[in-house]
Amino acid sequence: MTFAQKLDQAARATEERLSALLDKLAGPQAASARLSAAMRHALLGGGKRFRPFLVVESAALFGLPITAAIDTACALECVHCYSLAHDDLPAMDNDILRRGQPTVWHAYDEWTAILAGDALLTLAFEILARPSAHADPDVRAELVLELAKASGARGMVGGQSLDLEAEKLATAEPLGIDGIRRLQGMKTGALIRFAASAGAILAKAGADDRDRLARYGDDLGFAFQIADDLLDVEGSEVEVGKAVAKDAQAGKATLVSLMGLEAARSKLRALEQDAKHLMTHYGPRGATLAEAATFVVNRRS
Amino acid sequence: MTFAQKLDQAARATEERLSALLDKLAGPQAASARLSAAMRHALLGGGKRFRPFLVVESAALFGLPITAAIDTACALECVHCYSLAHDDLPAMDNDILRRGQPTVWHAYDEWTAILAGDALLTLAFEILARPSAHADPDVRAELVLELAKASGARGMVGGQSLDLEAEKLATAEPLGIDGIRRLQGMKTGALIRFAASAGAILAKAGADDRDRLARYGDDLGFAFQIADDLLDVEGSEVEVGKAVAKDAQAGKATLVSLMGLEAARSKLRALEQDAKHLMTHYGPRGATLAEAATFVVNRRS
Repeated sequence: MTFAQKLDQAARATEERLSALLDKLAGPQAASARLSAAMRHALLGGGKRFRPFLVVESAALFGLPITAAIDTACALECVHCYSLAHDDLPAMDNDILRRGQPTVWHAYDEWTAILAGDALLTLAFEILARPSAHADPDVRAELVLELAKASGARGMVGGQSLDLEAEKLATAEPLGIDGIRRLQGMKTGALIRFAASAGAILAKAGADDRDRLARYGDDLGFAFQIADDLLDVEGSEVEVGKAVAKDAQAGKATLVSLMGLEAARSKLRALEQDAKHLMTHYGPRGATLAEAATFVVNRRS
Repeated sequence: MTFAQKLDQAARATEERLSALLDKLAGPQAASARLSAAMRHALLGGGKRFRPFLVVESAALFGLPITAAIDTACALECVHCYSLAHDDLPAMDNDILRRGQPTVWHAYDEWTAILAGDALLTLAFEILARPSAHADPDVRAELVLELAKASGARGMVGGQSLDLEAEKLATAEPLGIDGIRRLQGMKTGALIRFAASAGAILAKAGADDRDRLARYGDDLGFAFQIADDLLDVEGSEVEVGKAVAKDAQAGKATLVSLMGLEAARSKLRALEQDAKHLMTHYGPRGATLAEAATFVVNRRS
């Protein structure tokens, strides 16, 4: 199978399972049909499903089949999609388009988008706490703990707050490279680190494997952000599927604007090499995650 | 100790522990100071802490000390307070006053209130997944599962959606008694049922105890809602600490407006008696939760 086929396979498995979980756990019985539909819109409106793919592939490093990782992949995607639904709100980024589709608040309204996001975040932890996520309750509790840490005030939500503070508050100090690096490490890096580490948790692997995968995830998250900034500068709206050059137009400092184009591209290559090197430890099994590093560096949307 | 002293003791223990958890888990290190402050505003702005009290007292039925129940009580309070921060938003109930204090969005702004709510919901599951919540990971996973079910699309968030649909959508069918009962059972009842059942989960009690406490929680939740509607009709703004008669002014159907004042008061007494009767099973240990039923029925704010 090619890398693209593997990515596609994980995406389809994730979407099938997410659809079944939505029907079962947020479905019609006694629930709000409007809320369920908005959750479905937020969750099944496209996307590469790159985070679920990382969960599936990090589990495969330890010989686990896709079925053993799919619920964890779905829980993570619920968190990612809830964060998009909230970030797109008028009070935050005020976006009306996401993956070429209307954002949740634009398709419904603000309160529905807020509640759909709340329900998706809650659903993520319900999925991880169910025995179908893993037979061992110790593993389930650890998945909940690590996903909560990655998603909360010291992770994704904290990063989004720092980002909006820099953008919206007149009193905010301009962020330097270190500040942006920390912000992005929280806002996008923490979930990617969780995705890469999840396989080690599911396989009850030792501290060495966890550390290695966390470092791989950090490389990937950093690379992801630089690539995103480069796309904002270089990409076209059709390729990216959302408004581009927004950062530049907003006069917003990015890693690329502070480092310069050449240094950013060079850092991107260094991160790719480090990530690939970490995967050599796993021999042939590590090949797909090594390719994933190249995929992140070269992505055009 | 009197009932009021017990309620106060649980409230103070909850607030002390919440403050420590906020410092430790959402505190300054790398996090956003603004976000942490908004979370603190949402969480420590007063309130009776009735749900935490129910957790503590349901655990006491099985001989568990307050220290064994306090983290679960705090997690539940995080969910309750996040829901208030989001419900108060302009896009939802548009309230500027809560417990006599500015609501989170009014004290900060909308995006900060959305993110503080998101972070509090996430924190709830982080608290439950940590070993300090319970030594047995099976219990921790079950607490996460039950709290998520009570809080999500088929619980609290679903109920809030049904409520806003009835209020804001021109196409919505008017709700009858059964519809409002179901809505309220989700919106406020599910968390109260979780609170009452939590002691049985923490004590690894059998199905009989869980069913009994769930039924007690359902009685209490229903009574809580009728009492709330009665306060909206009969209370004064000073006693309640927020705007009253909003439902009547909005022409909104409530249990009381549909049942009539006398039938509502009579139902309230019947629920009180049933809840008290369920607690006789626990002998002297059940006395406090029996008193709690009277407290709910007679509350003036």
